[in-house]
Amino acid sequence: MSAFDELMAFQRQTEALARIAGRLGWDQETVMPRGAAEQRGEEMAAIEAVLHARRIDPRIGDWLSAADGNGDPAMHAALRHIRHSHCRAARVPADLATEIARSTSVAQGIWAEARRADDYDAFAPTLAQVLRLKREEAAALADGGSLYDALLDGFEPGMTAADLDAMFGALRPRLVALREAILGAAHQPAPLAGDFAEAEQMMLSHEMAEAFGYDFHRGRIDKAVHPFSSGSGADVRITTRTAPHDPFNCIYSTIHEVGHAAYEQGIDSSYAFTPLGQGVSMGVHESQSRIYENQLGRSRAFTGYLFGRMTALFGDIGIADPETFYGTVNRVAPGFIRTEADEVNYNLHILLRFDLERALIAGDLTVADLPDAWNTRFEADFGVRVDRPSHGCLQDVHWSVGLFGYFPTYTLGNVYAGCLHRALRASVPDLDEQLAQGDTAAATGWLRDSLQTHGGLRPPRDTIAHACGVEPSEGPLLDYLEAKFTDLYRL
Amino acid sequence: MSAFDELMAFQRQTEALARIAGRLGWDQETVMPRGAAEQRGEEMAAIEAVLHARRIDPRIGDWLSAADGNGDPAMHAALRHIRHSHCRAARVPADLATEIARSTSVAQGIWAEARRADDYDAFAPTLAQVLRLKREEAAALADGGSLYDALLDGFEPGMTAADLDAMFGALRPRLVALREAILGAAHQPAPLAGDFAEAEQMMLSHEMAEAFGYDFHRGRIDKAVHPFSSGSGADVRITTRTAPHDPFNCIYSTIHEVGHAAYEQGIDSSYAFTPLGQGVSMGVHESQSRIYENQLGRSRAFTGYLFGRMTALFGDIGIADPETFYGTVNRVAPGFIRTEADEVNYNLHILLRFDLERALIAGDLTVADLPDAWNTRFEADFGVRVDRPSHGCLQDVHWSVGLFGYFPTYTLGNVYAGCLHRALRASVPDLDEQLAQGDTAAATGWLRDSLQTHGGLRPPRDTIAHACGVEPSEGPLLDYLEAKFTDLYRL
Repeated sequence: MSAFDELMAFQRQTEALARIAGRLGWDQETVMPRGAAEQRGEEMAAIEAVLHARRIDPRIGDWLSAADGNGDPAMHAALRHIRHSHCRAARVPADLATEIARSTSVAQGIWAEARRADDYDAFAPTLAQVLRLKREEAAALADGGSLYDALLDGFEPGMTAADLDAMFGALRPRLVALREAILGAAHQPAPLAGDFAEAEQMMLSHEMAEAFGYDFHRGRIDKAVHPFSSGSGADVRITTRTAPHDPFNCIYSTIHEVGHAAYEQGIDSSYAFTPLGQGVSMGVHESQSRIYENQLGRSRAFTGYLFGRMTALFGDIGIADPETFYGTVNRVAPGFIRTEADEVNYNLHILLRFDLERALIAGDLTVADLPDAWNTRFEADFGVRVDRPSHGCLQDVHWSVGLFGYFPTYTLGNVYAGCLHRALRASVPDLDEQLAQGDTAAATGWLRDSLQTHGGLRPPRDTIAHACGVEPSEGPLLDYLEAKFTDLYRL
Repeated sequence: MSAFDELMAFQRQTEALARIAGRLGWDQETVMPRGAAEQRGEEMAAIEAVLHARRIDPRIGDWLSAADGNGDPAMHAALRHIRHSHCRAARVPADLATEIARSTSVAQGIWAEARRADDYDAFAPTLAQVLRLKREEAAALADGGSLYDALLDGFEPGMTAADLDAMFGALRPRLVALREAILGAAHQPAPLAGDFAEAEQMMLSHEMAEAFGYDFHRGRIDKAVHPFSSGSGADVRITTRTAPHDPFNCIYSTIHEVGHAAYEQGIDSSYAFTPLGQGVSMGVHESQSRIYENQLGRSRAFTGYLFGRMTALFGDIGIADPETFYGTVNRVAPGFIRTEADEVNYNLHILLRFDLERALIAGDLTVADLPDAWNTRFEADFGVRVDRPSHGCLQDVHWSVGLFGYFPTYTLGNVYAGCLHRALRASVPDLDEQLAQGDTAAATGWLRDSLQTHGGLRPPRDTIAHACGVEPSEGPLLDYLEAKFTDLYRL
């Protein structure tokens, strides 16, 4: 066997074990008995220890030195991924990696309980411990460089806080101006009202998943507190949630997660169990979930189709026609909760988190001061005072499980989705006619062929550039939002 | 750290990884998408390879040489278990262990499909491959001794086919005589008839699980084609199944699996993640499921309580009174399917499998000849001709997943349950008054304190002897069956 083949055989087992760890995460969020949390923490720590030991295995260094990509792009890309993962893992002491796995597994349950009880103090010591461990990890990874960039690099290789700052700086004024114009508009769509039975919501969830090409033979839908997708290749599961007064939450959570899942299900199956066999970064992943959810799912054309399906299932929903329904689906309104935010406000929620978590990681903000810092910033950005921790800094699971450096990839995903949407429209001129029939085949097929099938072949930014034919920038997203909402709000 | 402490720290991670492998097994049987079977085979192979490498890690040999139990029984027992597992694993080549894990994971799906299609030929090549691999494994394990004993030792350490032959030889004539007397009796209870809605069956399943002390905080019930229990400690899950005309299948599958789960949930929590932290053998495990299901669950006293619950839930079930219901629950009838067999016929199904699998492993019977051998033996033992493969040698999952040497532990469990039941009756004189109220607390409490809490502290046979105060034998089971059915059938 060549060094390359030996490395790939070793890597194949590592990928399989990583998938197992992911599957345990799904289990924990959907079906695990509540009393098992502590035990699961020990199990997660054990498999993370195995994974960590494999990632820093000194043979990898030898194989990497000896291996040759032979001019083959896929082989080169596989070596690039393994080198990146090996370098990062080798910098983190094994004890620290194990301790992070154990602590974050337990912390998640404590966060969920604290959020339920609306009690920040019950969560603060746990968050402080997770933050301490993650800062320690960041220092090990950064090797003298920026702590935050070191964490960001784990989710979006090649991206830096400075790049994001430039991009977010360009987004902010136009988003704020657009939101102010919208909130001051004379025409304001009405919100949805009424009770929507859970069983019908779940039926619609399945129907929407199928409409967007989700392959149930290689997946399933369950309910979770915080919807997510999980897995790769032939086992990609999604979750959604239901609320009696808000069927859009269920429908658009489903479509969003189908976007993530379609990426994983769409990757060239010859990449399975290689480093190319999963989505290349969180930002690119989010571009798929966002374009499915927003540019396609909330388009005038598709909401017209959805209006027909909802009235067929629920009868009179208190909305007279598709155009009114389009306004309701896309209604812009102030709100505390990121995951319930409209397309215009959403990125402002992210910008807030990006700045706060950078300060936490830099040591400029303490866990004790976090609620005040959050609430002050929120009032400045949104003009509303946060009324309780679960509407503020307790709302998201991310920090409890150690995901610092993750939030900005959501807005990056929106930016990438804007670029992909522009290219898709150019490629499929009659897109709206198809969406109006609930037919997404041309759109999802274009995304699969242009982007999804390639998995980890190219670096994140190059993945988007390859699909779009131009370098990504925030312009297309801003243009899309301004055009859509200027029209919708008759500005 | 002492050698003992180092060994136990290493073992703790191994136990955690083994639990993860078990959890994947649950996932595969309950929720996994069908298209994921092949991918899961690769994942299972990867974690089995990790487990195998840990079990044969040469440091274990060094630690075992240097470690000292310090006269502490739990420490001694832990060393005994690790030595047993290490010796067995060290004899099996890593490639073979990996190949068995991969093949059996895939074989299970092929078996399920062949059973559904009633097509033995579709399964035969797969079974031949599994059998070949298991014989190879047995040869490696036996090291010149009996192949079958080497496999049996993996499920019931210390037990041999010769011991079982003696026990089964004593069971056979009295069971056959009892069955013949029953089938010739003038008084014959009527079977249950009617339709029983699935939702109510599942409600009753939950109710029965609670009545027998199942802790839902550390467990859950799902449906599976072939009911099983899975997990240890704080995460012990059970499954059941429903059939519209046979609510007893659902009810008694549940109570049976609760017996298994109660053993795991009842083990001293200080044994968690040590070799003492799970049931000590399959035979002892089965003693718990059997005594819950049969000696307690099918007793006149408890069926009286169950009759009340069923009529409350389903209304008129076509049975007039508790005594008639007791006869219906315990009705003895010829049948093809082991898992649906009554208490008298059940062990005869096992004796058949024990003899056939010994012949398969010895090389005296081929996969091609198995259906004929099965059908001939079945007709001789039960007086009925098998009408299709799914009623014959395709009915059980065991051989498809490589479980040769497992079947006899079911009858061993029945024998052990007979012994435990005699001791329990002596210890709880008013047991029937309690069971008649649906109250199993004294019975399950006695089992927990006498047996379950000790986990793997003592070897299997000693575990039963310790709980009963006498050495186990087949006498109590036979006496119990003869007394119960002589009375019930007015012989």
